Amino acid sequence: MTITGEMLIGASAVRGSSEPFHAINPATGETLEPEFHGSGTDDVARACELADAAFDAFRVTSPDQRARFLEAIADQIEALGDALIERAHAESALPIARLQGERGRTTGQLRLFASVLRAGRWQTATLDSALPERTPPRPDLRMQKIAIGPVAVFGASNFPLAFSVAGGDTASALAAGCPVVAKAHPAHPGTSELVGRAIRKAVADAGLPEGVFSLLTGAGHTVGTELVEHPAIQAVGFTGSRSGGLALMQVASNRAQPIPVYAEMSSINPVFLLPEALSARGEAIARELADSLVLGVGQFCTNPGLLLALEGPALDTFRAAAGAAVTAKPAGTMLTPGIQRAFEHGITSLSDIPGLARTATGQASTGPNQARAAVFETTAQRFIADPRMHAEVFGPSTVLVVCRDVEDLLAVAQQLEGQLTATVQADRGDYALAAQLLPLLERKVGRILFNGYPTGVEVSYAMVHGGPFPATSDTRTTSVGTTAMDRFLRPVCYQNVPAQLLPPALQDGNPLDLWRLKDGQPAKG
Amino acid sequence: MTITGEMLIGASAVRGSSEPFHAINPATGETLEPEFHGSGTDDVARACELADAAFDAFRVTSPDQRARFLEAIADQIEALGDALIERAHAESALPIARLQGERGRTTGQLRLFASVLRAGRWQTATLDSALPERTPPRPDLRMQKIAIGPVAVFGASNFPLAFSVAGGDTASALAAGCPVVAKAHPAHPGTSELVGRAIRKAVADAGLPEGVFSLLTGAGHTVGTELVEHPAIQAVGFTGSRSGGLALMQVASNRAQPIPVYAEMSSINPVFLLPEALSARGEAIARELADSLVLGVGQFCTNPGLLLALEGPALDTFRAAAGAAVTAKPAGTMLTPGIQRAFEHGITSLSDIPGLARTATGQASTGPNQARAAVFETTAQRFIADPRMHAEVFGPSTVLVVCRDVEDLLAVAQQLEGQLTATVQADRGDYALAAQLLPLLERKVGRILFNGYPTGVEVSYAMVHGGPFPATSDTRTTSVGTTAMDRFLRPVCYQNVPAQLLPPALQDGNPLDLWRLKDGQPAKG
Repeated sequence: MTITGEMLIGASAVRGSSEPFHAINPATGETLEPEFHGSGTDDVARACELADAAFDAFRVTSPDQRARFLEAIADQIEALGDALIERAHAESALPIARLQGERGRTTGQLRLFASVLRAGRWQTATLDSALPERTPPRPDLRMQKIAIGPVAVFGASNFPLAFSVAGGDTASALAAGCPVVAKAHPAHPGTSELVGRAIRKAVADAGLPEGVFSLLTGAGHTVGTELVEHPAIQAVGFTGSRSGGLALMQVASNRAQPIPVYAEMSSINPVFLLPEALSARGEAIARELADSLVLGVGQFCTNPGLLLALEGPALDTFRAAAGAAVTAKPAGTMLTPGIQRAFEHGITSLSDIPGLARTATGQASTGPNQARAAVFETTAQRFIADPRMHAEVFGPSTVLVVCRDVEDLLAVAQQLEGQLTATVQADRGDYALAAQLLPLLERKVGRILFNGYPTGVEVSYAMVHGGPFPATSDTRTTSVGTTAMDRFLRPVCYQNVPAQLLPPALQDGNPLDLWRLKDGQPAKG
Repeated sequence: MTITGEMLIGASAVRGSSEPFHAINPATGETLEPEFHGSGTDDVARACELADAAFDAFRVTSPDQRARFLEAIADQIEALGDALIERAHAESALPIARLQGERGRTTGQLRLFASVLRAGRWQTATLDSALPERTPPRPDLRMQKIAIGPVAVFGASNFPLAFSVAGGDTASALAAGCPVVAKAHPAHPGTSELVGRAIRKAVADAGLPEGVFSLLTGAGHTVGTELVEHPAIQAVGFTGSRSGGLALMQVASNRAQPIPVYAEMSSINPVFLLPEALSARGEAIARELADSLVLGVGQFCTNPGLLLALEGPALDTFRAAAGAAVTAKPAGTMLTPGIQRAFEHGITSLSDIPGLARTATGQASTGPNQARAAVFETTAQRFIADPRMHAEVFGPSTVLVVCRDVEDLLAVAQQLEGQLTATVQADRGDYALAAQLLPLLERKVGRILFNGYPTGVEVSYAMVHGGPFPATSDTRTTSVGTTAMDRFLRPVCYQNVPAQLLPPALQDGNPLDLWRLKDGQPAKG
């Protein structure tokens, strides 16, 4: 499939009417062809109008139809073959093997949502029997969840496949029955176009209305703002920076009809190194943490940006081992020149803070746009007193906070902003302290993990990739895992609706063979 | 129990430090004793700090403990006896029988949430088994929902019991494990204090931390704004006007940490009178609609404020019958002088719109603060062209929109803003048209009802008292029914957490005997 530099407005591939831009290979600095053009105001409006026009037909497709559609998208992405991986590699400098794994995650996610669609629990079918003899009589009441409407999806820079054009937001929105208008991330427009064309082919092959999917382009903020402002758009999925997420939240809440924004934004993912674990496994933890820190050049929402430990000999051993491990890490190419500049700026800002010492630095850069890992160290008192140390530096940077005692450790935990994850390294003798820590962490994070590292995010039923603000804009939701779909659904109640007019999920006889809540009891039948 | 005019800040009954105010008996205009004082800034902060301090202990009470607490609140409300009904009657002019029914709804709702707590599905317990042999290995992942944090609840004027201090918002928030800081509606402060004292007694009897419940007072907007601005507050429940809801949404989204607002605001609840039903039952529908229109002096969120029908002889018969029925309705006393003034203003505004004719008016007022029912009429074209006709007039007012044909009818449906309900009066011959209408209504409303009237809202599993903006601020939720509790919960994932440290809902062996989703399948065990 050729990359043409066009937007995909429904079934039409057309050149954007706004400013031209190119992708850049961050590993070489070279400009990649072809030229792209940003979507103009009319392009945005046309994509949104098509999505609105497609909505009613799409949302009432059967769950099995939508499941087959999602599977077809996965097939079409696989059919792109090596060309997709090569383009993504050129645009992101992410390793080939990582991108192959990410493609598997992307297609696996689409197929998981297909199975969720067929299982049908997402519909939350609920039936309350009429009680005609009661005073007053109770009507027949039935409830199901339906699609919320067309969704705007913003591709993330750091997962050009799994959090981008056909990533978790798109997969869960399409699964719910919502048309998607995606905005390609300008760092990987060619990858985005390839994936967009794969979705477009699946739309056409399934005979769905063209407006089920469109792909907009643009290097600045205008397209995104216009997209979120468009009255047809009913929800927003976004993964990116705190400032970007906050800006979209503002746009969405200023609309005549405010809409939900699901922004996954900012997290420093504290790692608590409890004493017994640190004594028993300090050197191994140091090496593994260093690996987690530089994985993907630290460009993960779940990168471990904060380490907490009690002072003492075990910490000294850990510090030395971590320092050695990080110092040995080669510099890595970041996703974009802009991200690299922001990382350098973040490192400089941290370096300028009195009382925050840089204790280890990775190997020097050998090419453009590279980042060297960095470890900083401070005390609990200083960390608590200085909010600048709490800010996310996107990339391979972490701050070790040395606590004099357990009270210090708990005080830091108490002070934290909302986070995607918190990690506890704990051996059996640490469990009493862990039990003290857990209630604090439950209030602060979406996922608590023990004796692991936060940088792996499983796509499954129980996953929560979410958390209190500013980790996300909506702590009630997750952007990874099967319940991501709930973000794009809303309940509708049907009272005394004649049998012939009831939707399939709520009909007598249960034609979809769903688990339904009937008079308060889960039942098939 | 004596009404003292004090706020209830945790366990302390104290006089507010801000301006004094009194309740007024709207039926007589007389001032009711005692004097109340608005909560000052320090009072608001103290209530919020107590709620925050109580949160961790309260949220980890067992579901059965919280169930017994909710049942104790219901018992304590019943123990208030006639004094509660009499005070509510004096403060609201609502009939004694209606208030007795509303008390039953309030206590029934508390007891229903107790049963929901014990059934445990609200925890959404989800378990994904570890797959240690997979590459990469999958960790053990478990998810449950936990309480979101302290909740601010704003009592509504029109349900001094069921949507007020111990109403649906409070019941669902407490069920979720969230402490509640309630703001009493200034129209019924005495009723609020009595109910607040009943809750406070239940808190004390259960040995719960005092901050689980506080009751603030105030006649203006300051207390509410300060309450929503307080950093301890994590969600807001509100039932009231569009302007009030929008103001709170603005305050919440301007916080350093934005929080969800569940505002149930504005709805005109269209009633579609389809041709065969209108021919067969037009006179009966006219009488029943007139009853629904004046029920509670029209002071329901679900009041039928918009009627749609096709022109022709059946409509002429309906119009005559509806006119006669409405003309015969006595005027009724509204809840407050302010609501009565707003109703008069709304009627005057509608009367001033060219092309909107007043076709029926109820009986003249016989006392202070009364409202006369009003029916207006216009054409589909005029209605579509003039958004002023779409605005809710809170009280017994409705607009009949005459449609030339089915296209007109569908065009009006298409134009509507978000609504709590839509009603369809349809006989068998109308089902084809109803089937055309249903997809439009699904997009616009939270509840679709056939051959009934929207003014009854059942508290049950399948109820949705919600709907797209501006009916509510959050179309994903309901403020009535068991799933109202979901508004105050958020998911947390536990990865490889040691068995000893897992919360009860997620432990091996399923000690709470929950339905859990295990590797994608619902199971007990």
